[in-house]
Amino acid sequence: MDYQGIIEEIAALVRPEFGKGKVADYIPALAKVPASKFGIAVRTLSGDTFQVGDAEEAFSIQSISKVFALAQAYPIYGEALWERVGMEPSGNPFNSLVQLEYEKGIPRNPFINAGALVITDMLIEHFPKPKTRMLDFIRELSGSDDVYYDYEVTRSEREFGFTNAALVNFMKSHYNIKAPVEQVLDVYFHQCSVAMNCRELASAFLLLANHGVHPRNGQRILTKSQAKRINAIMLTCGFYDEAGEFAFCVGLPGKSGVGGGIVAVIPNELSIAVWSPELNEHGNSQAGIKALELFTTMTEMSIF
Amino acid sequence: MDYQGIIEEIAALVRPEFGKGKVADYIPALAKVPASKFGIAVRTLSGDTFQVGDAEEAFSIQSISKVFALAQAYPIYGEALWERVGMEPSGNPFNSLVQLEYEKGIPRNPFINAGALVITDMLIEHFPKPKTRMLDFIRELSGSDDVYYDYEVTRSEREFGFTNAALVNFMKSHYNIKAPVEQVLDVYFHQCSVAMNCRELASAFLLLANHGVHPRNGQRILTKSQAKRINAIMLTCGFYDEAGEFAFCVGLPGKSGVGGGIVAVIPNELSIAVWSPELNEHGNSQAGIKALELFTTMTEMSIF
Amino acid sequence: MDYQGIIEEIAALVRPEFGKGKVADYIPALAKVPASKFGIAVRTLSGDTFQVGDAEEAFSIQSISKVFALAQAYPIYGEALWERVGMEPSGNPFNSLVQLEYEKGIPRNPFINAGALVITDMLIEHFPKPKTRMLDFIRELSGSDDVYYDYEVTRSEREFGFTNAALVNFMKSHYNIKAPVEQVLDVYFHQCSVAMNCRELASAFLLLANHGVHPRNGQRILTKSQAKRINAIMLTCGFYDEAGEFAFCVGLPGKSGVGGGIVAVIPNELSIAVWSPELNEHGNSQAGIKALELFTTMTEMSIF
Amino acid sequence: MDYQGIIEEIAALVRPEFGKGKVADYIPALAKVPASKFGIAVRTLSGDTFQVGDAEEAFSIQSISKVFALAQAYPIYGEALWERVGMEPSGNPFNSLVQLEYEKGIPRNPFINAGALVITDMLIEHFPKPKTRMLDFIRELSGSDDVYYDYEVTRSEREFGFTNAALVNFMKSHYNIKAPVEQVLDVYFHQCSVAMNCRELASAFLLLANHGVHPRNGQRILTKSQAKRINAIMLTCGFYDEAGEFAFCVGLPGKSGVGGGIVAVIPNELSIAVWSPELNEHGNSQAGIKALELFTTMTEMSIF
Repeated sequence: MDYQGIIEEIAALVRPEFGKGKVADYIPALAKVPASKFGIAVRTLSGDTFQVGDAEEAFSIQSISKVFALAQAYPIYGEALWERVGMEPSGNPFNSLVQLEYEKGIPRNPFINAGALVITDMLIEHFPKPKTRMLDFIRELSGSDDVYYDYEVTRSEREFGFTNAALVNFMKSHYNIKAPVEQVLDVYFHQCSVAMNCRELASAFLLLANHGVHPRNGQRILTKSQAKRINAIMLTCGFYDEAGEFAFCVGLPGKSGVGGGIVAVIPNELSIAVWSPELNEHGNSQAGIKALELFTTMTEMSIF
Repeated sequence: MDYQGIIEEIAALVRPEFGKGKVADYIPALAKVPASKFGIAVRTLSGDTFQVGDAEEAFSIQSISKVFALAQAYPIYGEALWERVGMEPSGNPFNSLVQLEYEKGIPRNPFINAGALVITDMLIEHFPKPKTRMLDFIRELSGSDDVYYDYEVTRSEREFGFTNAALVNFMKSHYNIKAPVEQVLDVYFHQCSVAMNCRELASAFLLLANHGVHPRNGQRILTKSQAKRINAIMLTCGFYDEAGEFAFCVGLPGKSGVGGGIVAVIPNELSIAVWSPELNEHGNSQAGIKALELFTTMTEMSIF
Repeated sequence: MDYQGIIEEIAALVRPEFGKGKVADYIPALAKVPASKFGIAVRTLSGDTFQVGDAEEAFSIQSISKVFALAQAYPIYGEALWERVGMEPSGNPFNSLVQLEYEKGIPRNPFINAGALVITDMLIEHFPKPKTRMLDFIRELSGSDDVYYDYEVTRSEREFGFTNAALVNFMKSHYNIKAPVEQVLDVYFHQCSVAMNCRELASAFLLLANHGVHPRNGQRILTKSQAKRINAIMLTCGFYDEAGEFAFCVGLPGKSGVGGGIVAVIPNELSIAVWSPELNEHGNSQAGIKALELFTTMTEMSIF
Repeated sequence: MDYQGIIEEIAALVRPEFGKGKVADYIPALAKVPASKFGIAVRTLSGDTFQVGDAEEAFSIQSISKVFALAQAYPIYGEALWERVGMEPSGNPFNSLVQLEYEKGIPRNPFINAGALVITDMLIEHFPKPKTRMLDFIRELSGSDDVYYDYEVTRSEREFGFTNAALVNFMKSHYNIKAPVEQVLDVYFHQCSVAMNCRELASAFLLLANHGVHPRNGQRILTKSQAKRINAIMLTCGFYDEAGEFAFCVGLPGKSGVGGGIVAVIPNELSIAVWSPELNEHGNSQAGIKALELFTTMTEMSIF
C-alpha cells in the first residue's frame, strides 16, 4: 500500500493543532527545540519507507528509549523480570511516588520512570558497558550509525534530575535497586538523551511489528511471545495517564516521549513514527496523537 | 477453522487450576454455585459454534453486563457519554471510592462499578423501561429468549449492596447521577443479575468482533468506530486491577464477571465465552483466564 | 476576672475580618443567614457570664453537636467506643472517603462526619428515642429549654445529604453501622440542625472545663478522665484540616461548625462561644478564629 | 512536690511492658542497644531533679532532635518559617512520600522527616557551621558538655538513608531545598545521631516548660508565643501517627524518637524524659508511653 499520500494529507490536516500544546520545558535543553517541527516516517514489513516533513531530523527520544531498554532486558531475564516491575497501567502521572510507596518499591510497569530505572539497574547488572550497549542495540535495530547521545540533554537531565534521584533512592530503600544510585542515574539519563529521527525510529520499531525478528537481517531478538507482550504493555501503559485515551482514539500499541516523539506499531504490517514537540496536558505530543488518530481513521487500520 | 479439538484439549488442560481459586461469596446467591462447573463456547463470524462442558448452563454474568449497558448507551449519547465517565484504567480495585473522590465524582471508566452506575443512570434517563429494555437487548444480540433476571441474585445484591449505594450517593453529591438513588440501584442490581450461558454470551459478543453489525440479521447496532472503541476499553479496563496482566497473557479485548464468566473477542474472527466459578485474587475466573491464555497460545491468535 | 472589656474590644478588633470569608452555602437553609452576625459569650466556673453582640441569637450549631453526641456515648460505651472509631487527626477534609476506605470503615476520629455517624449509630442502639434524648441532654447542660431542632435545616440537610448517605452506606458495607441507613441519617441530620445561641453553648461546654461535672447542679456526667480525653480530641481533631493551626494560634481545645460557631474551653476556668457565619477556606469561622486568637493573646490564657 | 516516689513506682509498674515491643533495627547501630534499659528523669522549674534507673546513660535521641532544630530555626526565620513547612498532623507514617507529593513538596509539619529536612536546610543557610552549632545549642540548654554525636550511628544512618535521600531529592525537585542534597543529608544524619541521657534531655526541655526562657541563666531563647507554639505542635504532631492517642492517653506536649526516648513538658511546672528502647508498632517507646501515662494519672497533671 502506498502511504505517501496519506501522510502528506495528515501533515496538512494537523496544522490546526500547532500552538495548542507546549514544548517540554522541565529541562533547558528541550525547551529550545522549535515548536514548529513536524515529521512522519512509515516503514512497512514489505520494505517500503514513506516520510514527510522533518522526518530525518534527530530529536530527543526520551521515554521512547524505555522500550529499547525493555527489549534488551526481557530476553536476558525472561519472565523473572516481572518480579521487580509490574505490568499494570499506573493511573497516575508518570513520575508518581504515591503508587510506588503504596506498592512498596515495585513500580507498576516498565514505562513509568520508576519502572524504567529498575530495568536500567537490570541492564547494569548484566552488561559491563550498558551505555555503549544501549547505543549499539538501537543502531543495530534502526540500521543507522547516526543514533547518538545528546550530551547537552544528558547534562540537563542530570542537573534537574532530583525526582528521578528520589525514585532511585526510594526503591533502593526497598531493595529493588542493586547498583549504586549514581550509576543507575547516569545510565538512565544517557538513555533518555538518545537522539534519532523518525525514519530511524520507525525502522527500529519494525522489530515489534515483525514478532521479534529483525526485519532486515532475520535475526530473532525477542521470542514471538515477548514481542507480543511488549506490544500489549505499550498499548496499556505507553502513554502515561492517557493510555486509555490513546487505545480508544488510535487503537495501536505505541510509546511517546516528552521530546514530542511517538512511535506506534501495526503488527504484521508496519511501524510509524511521528515528531512534533508541543505536548498536551498529559505530556504526549499534541499533533502527534492527532496524526496517529488520522492515520488509523484514513487507513482503517486497527488491532480492534 | 475447527476449534472443537482445541477447546476440548483446553478443558482437559485447565483441570489443575480447579481448587486454586475461590467462588465469590460476597452475596449468598453466588456462593452456592458449584465450583466444578466449566464451559466454553466459541462463535465464529462464519457462523460456526463450538462448545464444551457446561456451555449451555446459565450463570450470573455480573460485570459482563456492563458491556451490554455501554453498548446501549453509547449509540444514544455518542461521544458526549465521555463527559460523565472516563476511559482510563483505574489501577485500583473495582469498587474503589478513593479514585472517585480524587476525580470529583467522574468514574475512571465504564467498567468499574461507579462508571457502570453512571451508564445505568443514562439508560434510565433515556428508556422508559430500562430493565425490560436491557433484557430485550441481550436477547436480541444472543438470539435467545432464555436470557433472564435471576431475582434471587437481584435480591441478594440489594441486601448487601451498601458499597454501591455509597458510590451512587457520592456521585449524586457531585451531580453525576440524575435519577433517584434507589432507582439507579434497582436497575443496576437487575443488570448484574442477568443469567445466561456461554453459548448465548459468545453469540451476543459477536457484535464486537463484527465491528458493530449484528452478525445474524445484519443490523448496525454500533458504528464501526464505537465497536472498535468498546474493544479498546475492554482491553485496557476489562479486568479490574489485572487488566494489564490479561492484555499481557491473553492479548484480547474481553470482560470478566465475579460469577466466573469471561468473554473475549478476536476482531473479524470470533468471540469466545468461558465459565468457571472459582476466582483468583483479583476477582477474575482462575480457570477462565488460563483457558483463554491457552486458546491464544494454541491458535496463535492475537491482536498484537 | 472581668472579661467584659476584653470581649468588647475583640468585637471591635475583628471587624476587618468581615467580608473575607463566605457563609456556608452547601444547603439553602444556611446560606440565608446574614453574614454580619457576630456574638461572643463567656461563662466562668465561678459563675459569671459575659457577652457581646448577637450572643443570644440562636444559630445552627452543626458539627459542634458532635461533641454533645460523644459526651453522651462515651459514658455508656466506655473505652470500647474506640473500637469503632479512632482518635487520630484525619489530615484530610472532613467528609473524606479516602481515609475511610484506607482504614476499612473505621473513621479516624469522632469529629469527622464518618466518625460522628458511627457515634449516632451507637446512640440509636442505646436510646429508644435518640432524637428526644439529644435535645434533653443539651437543654440540661445549657440550662435552657430554648434549644431546638431547626426543621428547615434538617430538611435541607436531608435533601442534600448524599455525601453522608455515601459514608453510612460505605461503613455499613464494612459492618461498622448497625441501625438501618435511613435511621442513622435521620438522627444525624437532626443533631446537625440543633439551634442554640452563644450563651447556651458556653454554658453547656462548661462541663468540659469542669472535668465532667455539671457546673450548676454538681452531677457527674463524665469521669474526669473522659472529660480530659474529649478535650484532647477537640484539640487534635476539632477543626477539620486546620486542627494544627488552631492548636498553634489559639492553643485551646475547641470545636467549630459550618454554621459559623466555635466553642473553646480553658480547663478549670471557663468556656467561650463565638459566632460569625463567614467561613474561611477550611470551613471554620473566619472572624471566630480571629476572636479566639485575640482572646488568648489578650488574657494570656493557654494550656501550653 | 516530691516526684521520686512516683517515678520509682512507675519504674516498677512498667515492667510488664518489657518484651512487648521491638528495638529499632532499621540501622545496625541502634539494633544492638540492650532492650532492658530503662530510665526516667524529671526536672522542675523550681530546680529539683528526680531520676530512676538508667537516667544517666546516653542514648540516640533520633527524632527528639527535631525539636532542637526547630527551636533554633524558629527565632531566626520567625513566622516565615511556616511558608516552607506546615503545622498540621500528618495522618501517615513518618517518612511518607505520599503526603509530600500531594502537598507539592511542602511537608505537613516539622516533626516528620521531610519537615525536619527542610528545617535542616534552613539552619544550613543561616549558620556557617550548622553541625557545631547544633551541638553547642543542645549543650547550652542541657547544661552538659557530654552531649555528643555518636558517629557510628551517623555512619549507619548514612549507609541506610535512601528514604531520606529520596525525600530531599523530591523536595529539591519542588524547590523547597536550597543547599546541596548531600550537605542536607550530612547535617541531618548528624542531628539524628546526637547522644545524651534522660537527665540532660529533661534539663534541655525545661526551656519549653519555661515559656522560652533558659531556666538556669534566664536568657530568652524563644518568645513566649514561639515556646507555646512549639508545645502545640509537639502535642498535635510529636508522635508520628499516634499523636492523637498520646494526646488522649497522656495529654502532654512531647516528642519521641526511635532510639526509645520520649520527652514531655508540663508548662509552668516540669519536664520529664523517659528512655526504653523497645518500640510499639507506631515507632514510639512501648514502656515510655506507659510510664508517661502513669505519671499523669498518678500526679493528676494534665493540660486539659
